[in-house]
Amino acid sequence: MAEVSSKPIPLLKDELDIVIPTIRNLEFLEMWRPFLQPYHLIIVQDGDPSKVIKVPEGFDYELYNRNDINRILGPKASCISFKDSACRCFGYLVSKKKYIYTIDDDCFVAKDPSGRDINALEQHIKNLLTPSTPHFFNTLYDPYREGADFVRGYPFSLREGVPTAVSHGLWLNIPDYDAPTQLVKPRERNTRYVDAVLTIPKGTLFPMCGMNLAFDRELIGPAMYFGLMGDGQPIGRYDDMWAGWCVKVISDHLDLGVKTGLPYIWHSKASNPFVNLKKEYKGIFWQEEIIPFFQKATLSKDATTVQKSYVELSLQVKEKLGPIDPYFVKLADAMVTWIEAWDELNTASEAKHANGVAA
Amino acid sequence: MAEVSSKPIPLLKDELDIVIPTIRNLEFLEMWRPFLQPYHLIIVQDGDPSKVIKVPEGFDYELYNRNDINRILGPKASCISFKDSACRCFGYLVSKKKYIYTIDDDCFVAKDPSGRDINALEQHIKNLLTPSTPHFFNTLYDPYREGADFVRGYPFSLREGVPTAVSHGLWLNIPDYDAPTQLVKPRERNTRYVDAVLTIPKGTLFPMCGMNLAFDRELIGPAMYFGLMGDGQPIGRYDDMWAGWCVKVISDHLDLGVKTGLPYIWHSKASNPFVNLKKEYKGIFWQEEIIPFFQKATLSKDATTVQKSYVELSLQVKEKLGPIDPYFVKLADAMVTWIEAWDELNTASEAKHANGVAA
Repeated sequence: MAEVSSKPIPLLKDELDIVIPTIRNLEFLEMWRPFLQPYHLIIVQDGDPSKVIKVPEGFDYELYNRNDINRILGPKASCISFKDSACRCFGYLVSKKKYIYTIDDDCFVAKDPSGRDINALEQHIKNLLTPSTPHFFNTLYDPYREGADFVRGYPFSLREGVPTAVSHGLWLNIPDYDAPTQLVKPRERNTRYVDAVLTIPKGTLFPMCGMNLAFDRELIGPAMYFGLMGDGQPIGRYDDMWAGWCVKVISDHLDLGVKTGLPYIWHSKASNPFVNLKKEYKGIFWQEEIIPFFQKATLSKDATTVQKSYVELSLQVKEKLGPIDPYFVKLADAMVTWIEAWDELNTASEAKHANGVAA
Repeated sequence: MAEVSSKPIPLLKDELDIVIPTIRNLEFLEMWRPFLQPYHLIIVQDGDPSKVIKVPEGFDYELYNRNDINRILGPKASCISFKDSACRCFGYLVSKKKYIYTIDDDCFVAKDPSGRDINALEQHIKNLLTPSTPHFFNTLYDPYREGADFVRGYPFSLREGVPTAVSHGLWLNIPDYDAPTQLVKPRERNTRYVDAVLTIPKGTLFPMCGMNLAFDRELIGPAMYFGLMGDGQPIGRYDDMWAGWCVKVISDHLDLGVKTGLPYIWHSKASNPFVNLKKEYKGIFWQEEIIPFFQKATLSKDATTVQKSYVELSLQVKEKLGPIDPYFVKLADAMVTWIEAWDELNTASEAKHANGVAA
């Protein structure tokens, strides 16, 4: 006899990995248990590899520390950041699944205005499984949501949309502000629940935050490189931004969509604005040149895959951003190394599949 | 002694006209009285000029029927549509105010999720008085709203924004669907209150609906021409769309902003989908060529004003859309006539100010 269950149905259970970068025990998962326990986790341990990270019982996971990364990638490990959550992209590299959801360990389950717990992953999956509409704006937002559609004046030829590559979720409570804004508005909290998902139009860049992010690894994975940040690098807190700029340019080029809006998570703790300022300050003035660079970047007709597009973009980074600072030359090289590592670990044969510590 | 009043404060009372196109008595204004009574109304009566339109007592208004339009514009009256709500743009022409709010007579006061009546005009004014951000997407929507700001990664050089030319409001209850969608989903109602205002990015077109729309007449007025629709014309229900495409191209060219989202009005009655289909059917296939035309349209450096931009656009319409149908040649000519009429009625001197029937 069929039982009526109030348990959420885990969509795409065998096609999605959850990637978590962390330096501490993962108690935050307790709150996520009803939604995330059915899924496989890839934990990327940052910092001291001798530290033992505790994962709540019942979760299925593999965990990689710096020693694992060095062992698996060899000299190519240089492209993976250390002492920075940018290391999370190693998880994207070793996953074999079609979809990735990545979440920070200071993010908790948020509530919708009716007081119900938000199943963030379920909403991300809905976003990814419905098309995007980057070529024309729909004023009632995502036309594929229940109760919505394309409004009068929306061209019929564009109503099929394009495949969605990225679902960018938002945050209640602590907003994702830069250090100067944190300093100026230390008490500002995001309390506004905006019940919308929308496609970021073609040709428009956005600040992609890595806190609550899902993507189709097969469609865009190789562009989800979080750059060189943290230990030994002149900047931090631009890892997700860098990935977002590259991802958007390449998505536009390959006619893929990027959605933003729902789902919300509850962001519990503001990071220290003084520490952040130190990490960000070069990024804050570099971005004034980086963003116009990405706004103008175009890719050739030969760039028919994400990998080819990404390598082409790396050459432009070296040429156009290199003159700003030698850091960008190093970053451009790391972008190429990343693609090499991606291709090495993601060949058709599973023989090369690197294994971490399996639970 | 100061009295505590719960009455809304009428912002920009002497700088804003409310334009209403109608064929019937304006009882719908009763519900709007608390919010709109302090403002001056410009009523554009469509259809039979001998019909008397009743306006609820206490409203300050001027009313123009077809005879008035013909008298004031002479031969140039040919650019104003007849038997179509496109005639509303005559009201923009004769206004002497900086701002316009236009609303349909089947639109009522909506309630926000807390059950409070929404003062739509107040929200439009807030939208217009704060800048827009068309050059980069802000994931927390309008950064100028209370409780919001620019997120991490938003370039500081773009945080001043650009002047807002247009505020496009939305509709609860009956969504603004085209005839085919109305036919397919006769019972769909918009019940989703999305608590957001956002800038439509540069380079992206949108379907502008004239039902609940405000704009800065000084910044963009001459581009708010609603075209040739209705009586004697091959299409209808594309008046606001046409204006929206032109307005967006010119706003992008002149670095002005277009916002969409809040405020909502309550749209009470779906129009007849069979009648709509007849009005729309040419537009539905023409738009497949019109939209790519506007997506590619660029204006020259000489187009330094809205008028110059609009005349330049009219030449492109004639050249590029004329081959589709002779209608576009007529429309391109009407665009020029409209600008001539605008300049005639909007010279520095008030001497030429045409007077309608004042209340």
